[in-house]
Formats: sequence, C-alpha cells, structure tokens
Amino acid sequence: MSRPEICPVAIGPAVPPPALLEKAVLEAGARVAPLAEARALIWSGGIAEFPSELPVNIEWVQLPAAGVEDWFDAGIPQRHSSIRFTSAAGAFAASVAEHALAMLLAGVRYLPEHLRATRWRQQDFFPHVATLRGKTVTIVGAGGIGRALIPMLLPLGTHVIAVNRTGHPVTGPGIAETVETVSAAHLGKLWSRTDHVVVAAPATVHTRHLIGADELSRLQPSSWVINVARGSLIDTNALVAALASGAIGGAGLDVTDPEPLPEGHPLWSLPNAIVTPHDSNPPQLRLGAFADHVSANVARFAAGAQLLAPVEVERGY
Amino acid sequence: MSRPEICPVAIGPAVPPPALLEKAVLEAGARVAPLAEARALIWSGGIAEFPSELPVNIEWVQLPAAGVEDWFDAGIPQRHSSIRFTSAAGAFAASVAEHALAMLLAGVRYLPEHLRATRWRQQDFFPHVATLRGKTVTIVGAGGIGRALIPMLLPLGTHVIAVNRTGHPVTGPGIAETVETVSAAHLGKLWSRTDHVVVAAPATVHTRHLIGADELSRLQPSSWVINVARGSLIDTNALVAALASGAIGGAGLDVTDPEPLPEGHPLWSLPNAIVTPHDSNPPQLRLGAFADHVSANVARFAAGAQLLAPVEVERGY
Repeated sequence: MSRPEICPVAIGPAVPPPALLEKAVLEAGARVAPLAEARALIWSGGIAEFPSELPVNIEWVQLPAAGVEDWFDAGIPQRHSSIRFTSAAGAFAASVAEHALAMLLAGVRYLPEHLRATRWRQQDFFPHVATLRGKTVTIVGAGGIGRALIPMLLPLGTHVIAVNRTGHPVTGPGIAETVETVSAAHLGKLWSRTDHVVVAAPATVHTRHLIGADELSRLQPSSWVINVARGSLIDTNALVAALASGAIGGAGLDVTDPEPLPEGHPLWSLPNAIVTPHDSNPPQLRLGAFADHVSANVARFAAGAQLLAPVEVERGY
Repeated sequence: MSRPEICPVAIGPAVPPPALLEKAVLEAGARVAPLAEARALIWSGGIAEFPSELPVNIEWVQLPAAGVEDWFDAGIPQRHSSIRFTSAAGAFAASVAEHALAMLLAGVRYLPEHLRATRWRQQDFFPHVATLRGKTVTIVGAGGIGRALIPMLLPLGTHVIAVNRTGHPVTGPGIAETVETVSAAHLGKLWSRTDHVVVAAPATVHTRHLIGADELSRLQPSSWVINVARGSLIDTNALVAALASGAIGGAGLDVTDPEPLPEGHPLWSLPNAIVTPHDSNPPQLRLGAFADHVSANVARFAAGAQLLAPVEVERGY
C-alpha cells in the first residue's frame, strides 16, 4: 500500500515564514516545502517582492489581500496565466461581523448610558435595557460580513432577514432555514417589521444613501442602526437628526461620511452614537484571520475541492 | 378516528389573561380553559392572590418565580401535595446571558474608550481592538445562565470551558462537544489558559471571593472578567487594584459588592469597568421570558414529557 502523498506548499516571502501560516498549512494536512518542490504558494508579502518567475510545479497562489485590484494593476495574475490565484476575500469578515454584534448588543443593552453613570440608577435604567430575543434584525448585504454575522445572531433568538441583490436564499455554515432572504428591490417593505438594521453592503451608485430620512422615519425609537460597510450608504445628516430627535434608538458606526469624521462633528457628542474609527479589522488581527483562510484553502486544494475566493482574470477581481 | 384531545390549560389570576401567556399556551398546541375544566394552571400573579383551593382536575401548576422560597414559606406547594408544581427557574437566564455577552464583547472591542473619544484616533485604537475568535472563555457556573451563554459564544469562534461542581460534561441545546467541562475543584489549573472569565455561579460559602487577588494575578492584561451572578463571588478590593494597575483588561459587572454600589466608589470612575445596576433581567423583559418558559412547559405537559424546573417539596426548592 503506497503512503498517501502529503501536499507540498511553499510560504513566501519570509524565511522563516510566520509561524501562524506554517501552522495553518500543517493543520490542513499539508507540509511546508521549498518553492521548487511545492505545488502551491502562500504569499504573505507585498506586490514588489512577488517573484517575477514561478516554477512550473506551482499550480496555485494564495494572495494575502481581500481586494486584489493592485495585483492586477501590477500584472501579476495575468503574467502567470496557467496558475490559479485566490484572494483573501471573506477572510476578514468574521472580525467585522463580531464588531457589528458588539455595537448592536452594546446599544440594545444601553451600555453607552451605563458607562456614563456615576451612581446606581437601577429604576432609571430598567426600562431601557432591551433584548435581541424575539427581535428582527435586517442585514443589508449578504456578502462575507453579512453571512458571518448571521450565525452570531441566531443563538440570541433573533429573526434575521438578509437582503441581497437577487433575493436567492442566503446559504452558508450556521445559516438556518429560518433566515429570510429578500431582494434589495423589496427593501422598502421591510422597514415596518425591522427592529434593527446592520448595513454590510458594498458602496455603489445604487447603495449611496440607502438609509436616508425616509427609511429612518420608518424605524422605531428603540431601533439601532449599525454600519460596518461604507459611510456613504447612510445619509449622515438624516442620521444625526434621527439620533438627536430620538426617532431611532441609536447608531453604531465603524465607517462614517465624511471619513475620517472631523473633530466637532455632532456624531462625536450624541449620547446614542457609538463611533469606532474604521478599526473593526485592525492590523494585528489580520494575520490570524489570513491563517484561518489559508488553512481552509490548503485543505480544499489538497482534496481537489473548489477553492475559496478564486481570482478571475477575465473579470479583473 | 377520534380527534386528539387538546390539552385545556387555565391562566390566572388576570381576566383576561396577559395576551402573551394566552399566545404561549396556544403555541404549545393547548387551549385556554376555565380553572374548573383545565388540567393545568399557569399562574402569573402573586402569592396572596393564589387560590386557597384548587379543583381536583388540576394536575400541574406553573409558578411565575425562578426562586420559590416565598411560595414554600406561604405553604402553597405543601398544601396541594397531589399537584405537581414547576418554577420559572432558567426562564430568565437567556436575558442575563445576553447581557454578559454584551459586556464581554464591549470590553474586547474596546467600546468604553471609543465612547469617550471626540476625534478619529484610529492608530491609537488599532492595537486595543481584540477578538473573541480563538480565545478561551471560562464560565464559572454551568446553571441556566452558563448553559444559555455557551451557544452564544461558540459561533464567535471561542473555546469554552464550563466549570461546574461535579465536572460531569455540560449538555444542553446548542452546547457542542468541543465545550470542555472542568470540576470546580480544578479551577486553579484553568487560569493560565483562560483569556476571559464569566462568573455565573450561585453565592455560597464556597464561592465567596472565588475570584481574588491570586486568581486575578494569573489572568492577562487583556483579560475581561464578567460577573452576572452575585457581587460576593469577586473580591472587590482585589478587582479594583487589578483594574487600576492594568493587570487585567477590564471588568463588566451587573452585580457588585457592596450592592448597590455607593456613589464615589472607584468602580464608577475606572475607565475599564462597565457597571450595570443589576438590570440584566429588567421587569419589562420578564413576562416575555416567562411566556417562552410556559410555552415549552405546556408542550411538555401535553406530551406527557418531563417538565422544566420541577419544584421538589422534599428539598424545599
């Protein structure tokens, strides 16, 4: 009986490679090998250092970025047209989803006001401590972040509505059949049954000011609006007005418009706004998230399965 | 074929009964009936109003309290010794668990400091935004709250260690086999591999100051300590010292010692302490939680299955 071949994978450019990436390759059941012997290359470096030539034994390259426009501009996927490339798209979604959940729960549990308290104000606070249980959370955008957030919300007893372009049911690990999927064309019908909104859609001409004065007026005084996508998806002036009047409960914003948010902007002082300076996916968490992605993709590669986040040379991303 | 009998359940004392409880009975596949025709009584009122006599058709009474010492003091379960009684123990656990998660995530994501910011401080904040992914959360106490919290933590990619008296594996809905259970006798060995602690154990002579100076010194500068049980489980002076020195990352406290926490206490002003005034299970959420419990128990009763939270007359709780 022949010993099954253990898939050889190179890691570049660092020598020795980051321990986390080495561990990721080993955990996927593969082994770390020199470039000349490897079938795949996990690249954790920049564009300038990328090898101009790759040996013929390399079948697949994993790039470290979620968006690979710059790699295309440098001609790298095009130059190696017989090699498959994958990006890190989706790898950083879990951290952003966790951040969205943290802001939503902080809002619903009235933590901003609790943090300002300097005495035991139980009777004042009782009516304001709410729950996500039994509430409907509408997630606008069912890409990596939206799909990562759904399994985090379900155990809290929420009903989740995912909004995507097509209305085709959102699927993925931990996404139960109870999750509703609605096409963006029908978003207007959802506000009356939405308790809280999480904005996680790409910024396009169609999504600019997706949440404006009209949408905010149809939410409830207890509703929280969370934005972890791009600032332009929310009409900032309308949001400030809704927060100041109490038309909605609050907002948790990791992205703003304008961004960075200037000093003196009303969002800094509104008591029901949580602003985090686009730090939901901070640099020191990225290597760990990339390692998880590498591990999953190496296991798929070794098994001959479909790779995550394939780069399509024809489409340019 | 005879029509299956729909289980008749009375609701007392309000006429009409709270809509939520009526809905709970119907959702369990039973019907609401007058006391004289019912097999069970769902009681949402106080002790004083409880009927001194119950008709012989009543087999089971659901009480509205989680702790039923007062009902025993009034002699109610004893007086109706042929009737089964259940309490609402566990019914309110989900709200408290959600609160614990909210405080833990707020801490890990550095929200208290973000809330104090009045300008875009991305580079300052980057190193402090952490994640629960890949971290170990030790839950001391695997009662209703601990068991409700576990399924909320798992989708965040945490490793959970549950600590109970016996060390017998904790089981329940949404509790995966990856959850470790450790006996309280071995708690001392856990600190070195614990990232964050949630205290959810009952207050007894054995659990007083369970978390003291020694335990806090073995945690990490990034560790958060959450207490949703009783203030006496943590040595407050040792906690204040650990928070002030940065020996731990922070604390989220829904309970304190002393309680209420007096004005001027250092916990009110420490920037890495989140204090909520024992409001994790506020009055307005209790009826909803009780209704969920009623629905589950009526379904069990109608099916002849074991009831949740049986009151044991012999043991007095």
